[in-house]
Amino acid sequence: MAESKNSIEIDADRLWNTLNQSAAIGPGRTTGLNRQALSDDDKKMRDTFVAWCREAGCEINVDCVGNIFARREGADNTLPAVLMGSHLDTQIAGGRYDGILGVLAGLEVIRTLNDHAITTRRAIEVVCWTNEEGVRFQPPMMGSGAFCGVHETDWVREQSDADEIRFGDELARIGYDGDHRQTFEDIDAYFELHIEQGPILDEEGIHLGIVTGGYTSFGAQIAITGENAHSGPTPMALRKDALVGAALIIAEVNKIGWEYAPQGRTTCARLEVSPNKYGIIADSAKITIDVRHPEAAQARAMLSKALDFVATSKTAANVEADVVKEWAFGDTGFDHELIALVGRVATDLKVSHKQMLSAAGHDAYHLSKHVPTALIFTPCRDGITHNENEHIEANYTVPGVNVLLNAVLDRANR
Amino acid sequence: MAESKNSIEIDADRLWNTLNQSAAIGPGRTTGLNRQALSDDDKKMRDTFVAWCREAGCEINVDCVGNIFARREGADNTLPAVLMGSHLDTQIAGGRYDGILGVLAGLEVIRTLNDHAITTRRAIEVVCWTNEEGVRFQPPMMGSGAFCGVHETDWVREQSDADEIRFGDELARIGYDGDHRQTFEDIDAYFELHIEQGPILDEEGIHLGIVTGGYTSFGAQIAITGENAHSGPTPMALRKDALVGAALIIAEVNKIGWEYAPQGRTTCARLEVSPNKYGIIADSAKITIDVRHPEAAQARAMLSKALDFVATSKTAANVEADVVKEWAFGDTGFDHELIALVGRVATDLKVSHKQMLSAAGHDAYHLSKHVPTALIFTPCRDGITHNENEHIEANYTVPGVNVLLNAVLDRANR
Repeated sequence: MAESKNSIEIDADRLWNTLNQSAAIGPGRTTGLNRQALSDDDKKMRDTFVAWCREAGCEINVDCVGNIFARREGADNTLPAVLMGSHLDTQIAGGRYDGILGVLAGLEVIRTLNDHAITTRRAIEVVCWTNEEGVRFQPPMMGSGAFCGVHETDWVREQSDADEIRFGDELARIGYDGDHRQTFEDIDAYFELHIEQGPILDEEGIHLGIVTGGYTSFGAQIAITGENAHSGPTPMALRKDALVGAALIIAEVNKIGWEYAPQGRTTCARLEVSPNKYGIIADSAKITIDVRHPEAAQARAMLSKALDFVATSKTAANVEADVVKEWAFGDTGFDHELIALVGRVATDLKVSHKQMLSAAGHDAYHLSKHVPTALIFTPCRDGITHNENEHIEANYTVPGVNVLLNAVLDRANR
Repeated sequence: MAESKNSIEIDADRLWNTLNQSAAIGPGRTTGLNRQALSDDDKKMRDTFVAWCREAGCEINVDCVGNIFARREGADNTLPAVLMGSHLDTQIAGGRYDGILGVLAGLEVIRTLNDHAITTRRAIEVVCWTNEEGVRFQPPMMGSGAFCGVHETDWVREQSDADEIRFGDELARIGYDGDHRQTFEDIDAYFELHIEQGPILDEEGIHLGIVTGGYTSFGAQIAITGENAHSGPTPMALRKDALVGAALIIAEVNKIGWEYAPQGRTTCARLEVSPNKYGIIADSAKITIDVRHPEAAQARAMLSKALDFVATSKTAANVEADVVKEWAFGDTGFDHELIALVGRVATDLKVSHKQMLSAAGHDAYHLSKHVPTALIFTPCRDGITHNENEHIEANYTVPGVNVLLNAVLDRANR
């Protein structure tokens, strides 16, 4: 890293070492991870993280949806704190850095302040939001959503996974059912560092993305109800085939994505069919629809087309089809003061940077509606993510973590 | 039943009693059954059936795919035997009569012959074919298919269910891995009584359907391969979404069914998606395609359209798509002599009857290619089947069982 007066630097080897240790928890099928929210491996990762934070002198607080706050006291603890963080959970076949890089970068910031015996004016906290991925429990960004009042905490605790196991029960089982209450008034700012999950920084050889806003993203879960019947004797006209209803919706949602390409994106990533057996027409299906576009109006138009088609599919497949859950995120810009601060620090440190939009969901979206929030990206190879081949390099990542360190230090001394 | 000289009658109460006892084994969610092939409940049903047959004086033989042959010796045991039978397994949310009615009707025939102390010239056997439904292991009609050389027995034993449990291992576990070897030369004729699984007899108030042939039916399993990616940042043009590939195929196969309606039928009843999680584009999907038409040429045309579309889907969804398994059944007529015999007996007994085609698959199809085979139908309420609401009435069913009894008696004394 280029030298700059007044700036300090993280210990890159220590950060990489910590990342490598975390990558051993919740191994996937090949080189990546499968560390789903509230699983045994999530517990192990949380326990390890908590131990590291305690070693670094932090106090640990856990709230009633399992969000962990590791606090390093400041000189004036009556002032709102500066938060950094992201998530520890991964996709079912996910990478080693999506989420946890932002958490361990936060821990490295605290360790570096300890190295220099710096006491900041405000307290600094590293936060882990529960279930960002939404793999096991839906919707995604659940912990930050509950924290920000998007979801009732009681409702979150009642959600079940595919095996009908309750979120609240799993939280208690793994020992992260806390009673900490933190309010927005306790927070001065929130910084989230994350891998880009797109190819732009890697392609352009730029070390830092300063996110100005997100793709407006809508999600919906659709329940389709048909009727069991034998696939042989039942004429087409008498069928109520839930799988056909689902397939028509998936095909149409895909078509809508293409109509709004290249900026628009649509996905049906999850389909449950019952009974899903040879020889029997499906009586129920559930799908999730995900539509994203950088322009809110376009995203809304895409969602509206998709939901119109859900209604159409009822006639087309002779089934019932209902929206049973809906969510939205990404439709806010980030804090201008923090965007300017991060840009200034990056310039000071001679770290190449650019402003960009994010197409992926992040906990930072929920926070941005309540507290000044910055989301910053570091490169990932070829933009590959949610895939076990996700990969980052230290020399492309450490510059961004140093920007985080110095921006947080600046803000915490404000 | 109307009186007729020389004819004998089954004990309707005993048959109904036996059916009710069988309906307690493998309860479904409501009024039906979930007794999948080689499950614990299938074992319990097999054990119960074997005990009943032994009480009725039969010798039990089991072959290497678990088919059970319960033999009542005749006066001349060097002659080929007359077989009756069907299957004991059910759909995952199936009815109480699909399959087992034909087996227990066969047992009732033997019990009735015992009541009258009749020794037939030829031996009579009741047979239970393993895994007719194809719910847990594909393809359907597996036991009779193996018996008839459609599938290699070694291949059948290597097939796995969704939990990767081998057919051969389950067979050994439930104690039905036998070494009986029966050849076509040992069989004089095969009679299968089954519920119609269609509404015709019920609607027309006719008690017996004499099946002259089947709908030509083709099945195929398609494997679709895409690539994991994040549903947010990945532009439509870079996606290889296996679920989109599957949805396009399902929608198109459904369309083909409508093009050939009302006689043609198409179904995709089973879809496996991986990883099937929110936020991640699917990297693999498997679907089964099922096309049926009473005219072989039309069925072949439908299959060919469907498989052409599988090729098209590769480009449309930017995925790989391959046929990994194919099967066919139903494209044969039944034995004219047996059709005439059953019609004559029904006329003698004054049982209303009509000739018809079957749209569903039955073990009788496989047998019909090697031994004289009769398939006869009794009514089921509203034609509902592969559904827990499947229902039959004794007074609409017993006439057909009496036809079976007297036709088998005639043939066994030939």
